[in-house]
Amino acid sequence: MTKKIVVIGGSAAGAKAAAKARRLDMDAQITIIQKDQDLSQASCGFPYYIGGTFDTRNSLLSTPYGKVRDPDFFWDNKRIKVCTCTEVISINRQQKEILCRETTGNNRKFSLEYDKLIYCTGARARTFPLPGMDQEGIHTLLSMEDMDSLHRAATAGNVTEAVVVGGGLIGVEACEALAERGIQVRLVEVAPQILVMLDWQLSALMAKHMRAKGVDLYLGKKVTSFLGDGKVTGVKLEDGGEIPCQLVVLSMGVQPNIELAKEAGIEIGQLGGIVVNEGMQTSDPDIFAAGDCVECTHLLTGKKVLAPMGDLANLQGRVAGENAALDGAKVSFPGTIQTAICKVFDWKSGVTGLTERLARSMGVADYETVVIAGPDKPGFMGAGILISKMLVDKANEKILGFQCVGAGDVSRQVASMSLAIQGGLTLTQLVNADMPYAPPFSLAIDHCIAAAHVMQNKLKKRIKSISAEKVWEKIQSGEKLFLVSGCEEQEYNDFCLNIGEVIIPIGEVHRRMDEFPEDKDTPIICFCKVSMRGYETSLILEHAGYTNVSVMEGGAMAWPY
Amino acid sequence: MTKKIVVIGGSAAGAKAAAKARRLDMDAQITIIQKDQDLSQASCGFPYYIGGTFDTRNSLLSTPYGKVRDPDFFWDNKRIKVCTCTEVISINRQQKEILCRETTGNNRKFSLEYDKLIYCTGARARTFPLPGMDQEGIHTLLSMEDMDSLHRAATAGNVTEAVVVGGGLIGVEACEALAERGIQVRLVEVAPQILVMLDWQLSALMAKHMRAKGVDLYLGKKVTSFLGDGKVTGVKLEDGGEIPCQLVVLSMGVQPNIELAKEAGIEIGQLGGIVVNEGMQTSDPDIFAAGDCVECTHLLTGKKVLAPMGDLANLQGRVAGENAALDGAKVSFPGTIQTAICKVFDWKSGVTGLTERLARSMGVADYETVVIAGPDKPGFMGAGILISKMLVDKANEKILGFQCVGAGDVSRQVASMSLAIQGGLTLTQLVNADMPYAPPFSLAIDHCIAAAHVMQNKLKKRIKSISAEKVWEKIQSGEKLFLVSGCEEQEYNDFCLNIGEVIIPIGEVHRRMDEFPEDKDTPIICFCKVSMRGYETSLILEHAGYTNVSVMEGGAMAWPY
Repeated sequence: MTKKIVVIGGSAAGAKAAAKARRLDMDAQITIIQKDQDLSQASCGFPYYIGGTFDTRNSLLSTPYGKVRDPDFFWDNKRIKVCTCTEVISINRQQKEILCRETTGNNRKFSLEYDKLIYCTGARARTFPLPGMDQEGIHTLLSMEDMDSLHRAATAGNVTEAVVVGGGLIGVEACEALAERGIQVRLVEVAPQILVMLDWQLSALMAKHMRAKGVDLYLGKKVTSFLGDGKVTGVKLEDGGEIPCQLVVLSMGVQPNIELAKEAGIEIGQLGGIVVNEGMQTSDPDIFAAGDCVECTHLLTGKKVLAPMGDLANLQGRVAGENAALDGAKVSFPGTIQTAICKVFDWKSGVTGLTERLARSMGVADYETVVIAGPDKPGFMGAGILISKMLVDKANEKILGFQCVGAGDVSRQVASMSLAIQGGLTLTQLVNADMPYAPPFSLAIDHCIAAAHVMQNKLKKRIKSISAEKVWEKIQSGEKLFLVSGCEEQEYNDFCLNIGEVIIPIGEVHRRMDEFPEDKDTPIICFCKVSMRGYETSLILEHAGYTNVSVMEGGAMAWPY
Repeated sequence: MTKKIVVIGGSAAGAKAAAKARRLDMDAQITIIQKDQDLSQASCGFPYYIGGTFDTRNSLLSTPYGKVRDPDFFWDNKRIKVCTCTEVISINRQQKEILCRETTGNNRKFSLEYDKLIYCTGARARTFPLPGMDQEGIHTLLSMEDMDSLHRAATAGNVTEAVVVGGGLIGVEACEALAERGIQVRLVEVAPQILVMLDWQLSALMAKHMRAKGVDLYLGKKVTSFLGDGKVTGVKLEDGGEIPCQLVVLSMGVQPNIELAKEAGIEIGQLGGIVVNEGMQTSDPDIFAAGDCVECTHLLTGKKVLAPMGDLANLQGRVAGENAALDGAKVSFPGTIQTAICKVFDWKSGVTGLTERLARSMGVADYETVVIAGPDKPGFMGAGILISKMLVDKANEKILGFQCVGAGDVSRQVASMSLAIQGGLTLTQLVNADMPYAPPFSLAIDHCIAAAHVMQNKLKKRIKSISAEKVWEKIQSGEKLFLVSGCEEQEYNDFCLNIGEVIIPIGEVHRRMDEFPEDKDTPIICFCKVSMRGYETSLILEHAGYTNVSVMEGGAMAWPY
């Protein structure tokens, strides 16, 4: 008997699930119900269209060989029927059918039977009701429609100032896109940092870069209302401040679209996403779900998380499609380690596994962290800086997390470490890892291996290091410190931190010992550009009898103030 | 008592060992004996200096902050004494001293006592005695001296044609460097392929790219002599052919410098390298060795290999330095998976773990391979092609090896897979791996995950695939085949293979079924640009009752002929 598979939602997860189901069951009757007109759109590419990286809107809807993935494409290539501009009104689980309504023409209603239903409704922009929010010029950036109106607004020529509310992935990408169009962009974020996927220090370095690129950041600020008389003219902050603008992008996160499922009695989790097992099966065994609407398991903590990422949606869709098509052969999507990456102007930032914030909030007690900085490749090949933070489980020495920001090849670092973490690589393996080295690609000792070396030294108590944040606290509290930079004089301008440090180039430390404090118990903090020379300085001082010497992790390059 | 540590050789492994030993023992007396004038040189950067990527020779000798690592640097910064232009004549293990001779001035001889000796003599270019080999214009490319003379020759303006003998890493990099200087380059390789680190098919794709860049390749050709009358004017091949040139680069591999060790009775292995244990200790427990002169363990086969790579030399040096400094605390360098990468013009090629050739030669019986091709990121972000081959152990489904070539981001792929292999990641983990995705960096389904998907389909017998090499064999043997490309008509020019294929775009397969052979048992081979559409075509045909349908792996992009 021909199996009827119905997929609700034709974005990443839905389109993938349908295609996978088709490949495994050439007889099945497969239908996708898609609310919007477009389908199978590359949502993560929206900011780059708005910013002008490319001009052909259809690129976002096309196969690599340039064919638009419209209903004809799905039918001709895959014998998948797609109903666009059609919304699902309800799911009748007893009858195993869904009720649909066309959103165009005369709003025809029709019902559709299913043997297996795949629920891929995605997520929508999270918004909070605020006065003046319904005015012209206030946008979100999630759907293709959102993108179109932002693209129009950004290119019309009458927007000179924009405010982006929310400094997550979409927010910072929106900042870059609008800035690329010559618009003065200001970012308001209620949290004290942008990119909460990163720990504060690395996030602050990204913020520095955004400011250097002309984006004003209002961190720890709350928007209370939108000014204007039908057309937005500004945002008002809780502290009374006002920021003028003709355009607002609200990017305060997303929330799963689960209403239909909830009404049908499908189990919803505590985080507001649909509950699925590893086979992407909901509480109704004939209904699968995938993509931004589901909760999934964090592989390092075992806890449920929302992980609305395009890559995971595809992987989950693949599993849902297979399990819907082949009732017997169960395949699994085990979960996420919350890997993410984004480009912001000339810098990139990425994360995989646990940040220190997550480790703490998830109750992981026994971890060690290290921050390092260094070039991604030899200077003669045109190096870019990388600043990273690594977390290791002290009990079993497995890598728990890795964050990386900078102008260098962040992508290689985070991609490598994501598979290292998923493979359960230990620190002992990483310190001797055999990675691809040639000058156009990396240093002889790759950045993540160098991080492992420092971590190992730290765990073996061979280096007594201190974070930039701790140093700042000490300075703020007026603690008496002797700060020494091992930089060369000619580096002084670039890497001077103006925190009262004395410059003693590493090559002169031995013969300038008399410039260090007489009291050998004085707290001394050593650093340099990346704190390699700082480390060497500290060893010389300890050898000379100083008892309270530490090295500031990551040096001047990782200094977030 | 002050420990005396002597390091023979001041390149990658030696300099690293000395620096590491210093950090662990601030009292030790540490001496490096270096034959050449320069030390701590970035050897892998030589081709880029010759090719003009940068012009400052000192960059190769400098720290990231621009200080030349000369004997003064080592003394001032690290209190390491370096004797350059000094060779070691003999090692007296009974007396625990070495005899040295200065190679300049009046060739002063002196002896030096050691408690621990670290032997880092590297390797030298392998050459075979051939008539005419001592002429002017014939170079190797291993030492800084080699580099200097090649740089002079390549920039003097009187060389218009060059021959590179040997198509390994150094050979292909030398080709690019000389071509960048406007020289017509011809590469002669005795093996039937360049870059033997790759299996033939991927190597052939690199060869295609080199030819497209104007380098003539003479594969499977043997040089028998060098023409000229004091100055080289050409090379003569075994088949009688002659290639005119004013410059020759011999890059036929390297061999460990082990003579001193051998004379001193230190154990040498079957491959001609020094035998060391995991602690980099030789058969004499007070003598350590590291770098290109040692044999190391292949982590996937347990067999000994020579792995003369700059990154491993550093890692080994670090271990040797630590174990020499701290007799008690033994740390290990467990081995290599023979990871490598190189850039050749606009393409890159990399490998990690086992190739099929290695797997066969090392007796790994139960493996499966797959070749795939695809863009590294979405087309709208300016994608580059990637063609990869993956090997999986069929018994435990662990990844055994990964090779990748193309214009795309090969570095991220090979770096990721190198840690995946070292972490023991299984195929089941890789198909759902959570990797960093955003359009500037990758596809939603990353290339290596896509390779894992195809591999899984192959192992589950959902795709019946055939390699390009097998297809070629069938064509050559005159086998009756029906070849069908699922490309669009407008792609025809770019991806036509001229092997008698019929073009039936995937969207037209359903309605053009009458164009396929009547005999349902006809062998049919489907492909397209990357064989995704080929796969879909094969499913439609099988569903229509065809019994002998296969998909050509990697499609037109992986076609090496």
